[in-house]
Amino acid sequence: MSFDIQILGSNSAAPAHGRHHTAQSVRIQNQQFLVDCGEGTQLQMKEFDVKKNRLDAIFISHLHGDHYLGLMGLLSTMHLNGRKQSLDLYGPIGLADIITIQLKYSNTRLNYLLNFHELSGAESELIMENEQLTVHTIPLNHRIQCNGFLFREKPKARKMIKEKLMAANLSVAHINKLKMGVDVLNEEGKVMYAVKDFTLPAKRSRSYAYCSDTRYDESIIPIIKGVDLLYHEATFLHDMLERAKQTHHTTCKEAGIMAKKAEVGQLILGHFSNRYKVLSPLLEEAKKEFKDSLLGEEGLIFSVEE
Amino acid sequence: MSFDIQILGSNSAAPAHGRHHTAQSVRIQNQQFLVDCGEGTQLQMKEFDVKKNRLDAIFISHLHGDHYLGLMGLLSTMHLNGRKQSLDLYGPIGLADIITIQLKYSNTRLNYLLNFHELSGAESELIMENEQLTVHTIPLNHRIQCNGFLFREKPKARKMIKEKLMAANLSVAHINKLKMGVDVLNEEGKVMYAVKDFTLPAKRSRSYAYCSDTRYDESIIPIIKGVDLLYHEATFLHDMLERAKQTHHTTCKEAGIMAKKAEVGQLILGHFSNRYKVLSPLLEEAKKEFKDSLLGEEGLIFSVEE
Repeated sequence: MSFDIQILGSNSAAPAHGRHHTAQSVRIQNQQFLVDCGEGTQLQMKEFDVKKNRLDAIFISHLHGDHYLGLMGLLSTMHLNGRKQSLDLYGPIGLADIITIQLKYSNTRLNYLLNFHELSGAESELIMENEQLTVHTIPLNHRIQCNGFLFREKPKARKMIKEKLMAANLSVAHINKLKMGVDVLNEEGKVMYAVKDFTLPAKRSRSYAYCSDTRYDESIIPIIKGVDLLYHEATFLHDMLERAKQTHHTTCKEAGIMAKKAEVGQLILGHFSNRYKVLSPLLEEAKKEFKDSLLGEEGLIFSVEE
Repeated sequence: MSFDIQILGSNSAAPAHGRHHTAQSVRIQNQQFLVDCGEGTQLQMKEFDVKKNRLDAIFISHLHGDHYLGLMGLLSTMHLNGRKQSLDLYGPIGLADIITIQLKYSNTRLNYLLNFHELSGAESELIMENEQLTVHTIPLNHRIQCNGFLFREKPKARKMIKEKLMAANLSVAHINKLKMGVDVLNEEGKVMYAVKDFTLPAKRSRSYAYCSDTRYDESIIPIIKGVDLLYHEATFLHDMLERAKQTHHTTCKEAGIMAKKAEVGQLILGHFSNRYKVLSPLLEEAKKEFKDSLLGEEGLIFSVEE
């Protein structure tokens, strides 16, 4: 089952050097999400064959233009393409106003239901939950209200050992118990079928934390601790630390330190400043702090194996 | 002196077949305008080397997304690029609301003054005038309030015949009179210097009419009569006439008839429906009605000679 993050845009502020504004496709099992939606995201989705009409939900981190200005166009195109399936839209207070006023003036009534979920952003909160996964906010430290998003698979069922299952006379109820890791007892309370005999361990639950835009801020560590993949903005090299602080952004060195302290699996760097045409020095700087750092370049897909 | 229209986007509704949403660069003498600004226009401006910070004014026809969704990003990028020069923005009622609410939620105060000019759209009106040109609205017939724009150079001064000027003893006041086509009289009221002897005819005043989006509507003919260049939307082939009527668009045949009846110099077709990957049948259809029809394909520059 897939757990893929595809970078659709990786540049901060204005598009430059062939890099587009922030957007990511997040595909977890059979669910398709979009995280942030800078101008031109619908074109990037077409470029990388991300199916618009399969989108289950869109998450917007904050209301700086490079993170949401492609949203209205994407919503319109899905409408024109005849989308009927409702769409969940998670984002800061104000997003509903911005979308609603544009629908009003264009005299458009969307063919599909748009469910706005406005986020207060003060503390990490559970904003989405279904059978497969949860999504929590990660309150970030930016110039305006800004949330990251933590995607986490739910604990999975243990796997039945096929041969044992065939040999024994197990009911569906028994199987379900064993899959959940509960021994099946007989009437006297003794173990009839033991989890350890009939099942293999469950596949692990994978996790992805998206953190853009933010000052380096260790208060998020308890939330993102141990995730498989961390996307952390890394707008500047560390020689621009003062500028990073001033604009509420992070340096590559800091992003590496964050990944190390949070003990994540891999770090994806992104939200690159226009001043860097060549990105290899940014990667090198992060790698000095955290070896498993990667550049979040457009089109790349980062997958987590089960 | 230049009089150039460059097509930056030519597709209707959603971007498709490598075609972008509507936008045009209009360069008249030393003035640079943008007409409509679909999503991704700032990228198209970069692609075709239209200088953002030289923009004097932006004209938005109407508030369907394919005509304005690139505006907020363009305004932001000019702000980030340090623009200081004020910018005039002409568009329908609602445009100021849409821009203002986005500036509010992103907590942005632009470095430059944005002068909103909201257009009522009921009748053709003079909305801009300076030494070189005038701009009038062209009220169009669309599903929501929509204006076309008529750009017209002002009458130009006649050209002095250099040799005559050198031979005679003409003052600056005399020269200015002659350039304006007024004979210089002596004290007895007799012609001292005749316009016909000292000047050549003025270069002609060029004109461009932009008409998108609209139903075929002959009420605009008196406004656009005899323009050098007419851009007229031509969303559909004529076999889709019912669909064109229903969606308040025009067929290629109708666009050709419009050009013929309005006795224009050349017709540029645009705002092509996604259903047409190949555009040559659209051109052929218009040409049957009006020979000097052209496809408004992206990147093309249409110039009018003096």
